[in-house]
Amino acid sequence: MIHNRYVRLRSRPCGKIGQDHFELSSMALPSPEQGQLLLKNRLLSIDPGVRNLLGAKEGYLPPIAVGAPVTCSVLGEVIQSRHDAFAEGDLVVGRGMMGEYSVVTPDALCWKVDKASAHTLSNALGVLGNTGRTAYFGLLEIGRPEPGGTVLVSGASGSVGSLVGQIARIKGCRAVGIAGGEQKCRMLRDEFGFDAAIDYLGKSDEELHAAIVDACPDGIDVFFDNVGGRVLDSTLPAMNFGGRVVLCGLISQYDGASPPVMANLFMIVAKALHVRGFLLPQFADRYDEAIAFLEGAIARRELYFREEILDGLEAAIPAFVRQFNASTAGKTMVQLS
Amino acid sequence: MIHNRYVRLRSRPCGKIGQDHFELSSMALPSPEQGQLLLKNRLLSIDPGVRNLLGAKEGYLPPIAVGAPVTCSVLGEVIQSRHDAFAEGDLVVGRGMMGEYSVVTPDALCWKVDKASAHTLSNALGVLGNTGRTAYFGLLEIGRPEPGGTVLVSGASGSVGSLVGQIARIKGCRAVGIAGGEQKCRMLRDEFGFDAAIDYLGKSDEELHAAIVDACPDGIDVFFDNVGGRVLDSTLPAMNFGGRVVLCGLISQYDGASPPVMANLFMIVAKALHVRGFLLPQFADRYDEAIAFLEGAIARRELYFREEILDGLEAAIPAFVRQFNASTAGKTMVQLS
Repeated sequence: MIHNRYVRLRSRPCGKIGQDHFELSSMALPSPEQGQLLLKNRLLSIDPGVRNLLGAKEGYLPPIAVGAPVTCSVLGEVIQSRHDAFAEGDLVVGRGMMGEYSVVTPDALCWKVDKASAHTLSNALGVLGNTGRTAYFGLLEIGRPEPGGTVLVSGASGSVGSLVGQIARIKGCRAVGIAGGEQKCRMLRDEFGFDAAIDYLGKSDEELHAAIVDACPDGIDVFFDNVGGRVLDSTLPAMNFGGRVVLCGLISQYDGASPPVMANLFMIVAKALHVRGFLLPQFADRYDEAIAFLEGAIARRELYFREEILDGLEAAIPAFVRQFNASTAGKTMVQLS
Repeated sequence: MIHNRYVRLRSRPCGKIGQDHFELSSMALPSPEQGQLLLKNRLLSIDPGVRNLLGAKEGYLPPIAVGAPVTCSVLGEVIQSRHDAFAEGDLVVGRGMMGEYSVVTPDALCWKVDKASAHTLSNALGVLGNTGRTAYFGLLEIGRPEPGGTVLVSGASGSVGSLVGQIARIKGCRAVGIAGGEQKCRMLRDEFGFDAAIDYLGKSDEELHAAIVDACPDGIDVFFDNVGGRVLDSTLPAMNFGGRVVLCGLISQYDGASPPVMANLFMIVAKALHVRGFLLPQFADRYDEAIAFLEGAIARRELYFREEILDGLEAAIPAFVRQFNASTAGKTMVQLS
């Protein structure tokens, strides 16, 4: 019987999230059932998207119950396999538990990590994992940018957004990013190579719209949105006719506290926009293509992936909460020994 | 010099529209310029969509200035042509003036009416005109319903909505309509042949959502939305994965008074929805296809088009205002002698 220390949801946050909504706990881990894997977690992915599972409403997964373990993307070593395609000792990425161990049911978000790869494990969980694949398929398959077009990215200093801007540039587009604060905007330009950056902090909706128009003199052909709410609403009137809006996440709305007022949805009609959501598993049969592209771009030094790796399970709760303080950039992970 | 009696915008409405926002006036009509036509209007199309042009914000056309003529779709006889493709005596549909005469610049929303056609002039302006073509391309090209699927239509007793439901049935879909009031819902079932009808009046958002779920036991594959706002928001969680939302109009938002709170936009991500707006001119090179389909369906008595034709320009203002009182169904037109 394995004793698992893990993060559990202590109370359901509504509005601002705090460390008090979580607590470290421990439980006797049930043995994996037929078709499942028991992983010793090596790396935990700290994704703001998990916030979406903490409300009472159905999101892209059912809500996490109060008192239940918080789930997240993990990279771990198989220590017990009851699935034919996996063996003990395999390294696996999957949807697991924010804890020392995970029981995982392999699905379209679960795959084996190539141990012979030259890439780090953090790369396997990040730029070559869900993060990079989401950026790749979201931008290229849903957004379908054309060379010379303008791609606007919100949450642009985040793990997915920072890659989207760089992939847009690789594809010959002008990349403009929206982020919170002058420091992040500098990072967009200097580290991630965006052509222009917009600081949304302290701006009214009208000022934000004006700044977007200013930074996108030829209009916007593709908007890759991680934020939603007023950022989405302020962007719609700046879209070009027939433009595409990729809804990857709506992080501004995950707190469930005050659903946004959307004044400009009619622009979807007037400008004949395509607005599309997507989930990574829709592209499960094409992961190899994304990995080949991402590895190639990394090798050519065209893709810079910012990682922050923290030590120990104790770091997980503050790291997660910090995702919502506009003080992080790139990908945050927690490393377990 | 022709004296034109017409409807002009007296003051810019914000919120509920009333007859006081308009007045009958008269003006000396300027001669048509090179490339333009002077029409003697025979029929005026009374479309709620015109409300969208009365606010101060840019819609699908620039706003109508206070004091300026209200524009609308008209069918008229050419009495002076300065355009090579049109001759005096031609009957033409175009974007004209809500008045006795119009000066029209031919574009993708302007065409000649076949005088030899067996169809009435009101059919030419309605079911075979913008209305029918919008229903046809919006549903079939943007919504792309599959046989056996469920198509939900809002504003279902309106001119476009009532056709969309019938075209969906012709294509082998289950058609469910949303309308205001028991009388209209009866009309949806008995006159327009919808499989089910939902009365949104007096329902909270939760009740509306529950009624939609109830009327669509297999979920919704295509939502053809003429209304927006809370109707759209209440529908999103009932969509099937990968479903398509056709935004044809957002009539609930045209008053500009209180932009809607949208609580469920994340469903676009979670359900990987396609949300698309469109404008009829995008399909200008395929009008013949739509007309052939619509004429065939009319001939086979598969398509019922409800028309209300009022007499005289004096009827135009009350008829337009009535579009927003939930008391009209089908297509309203004004006939001029």
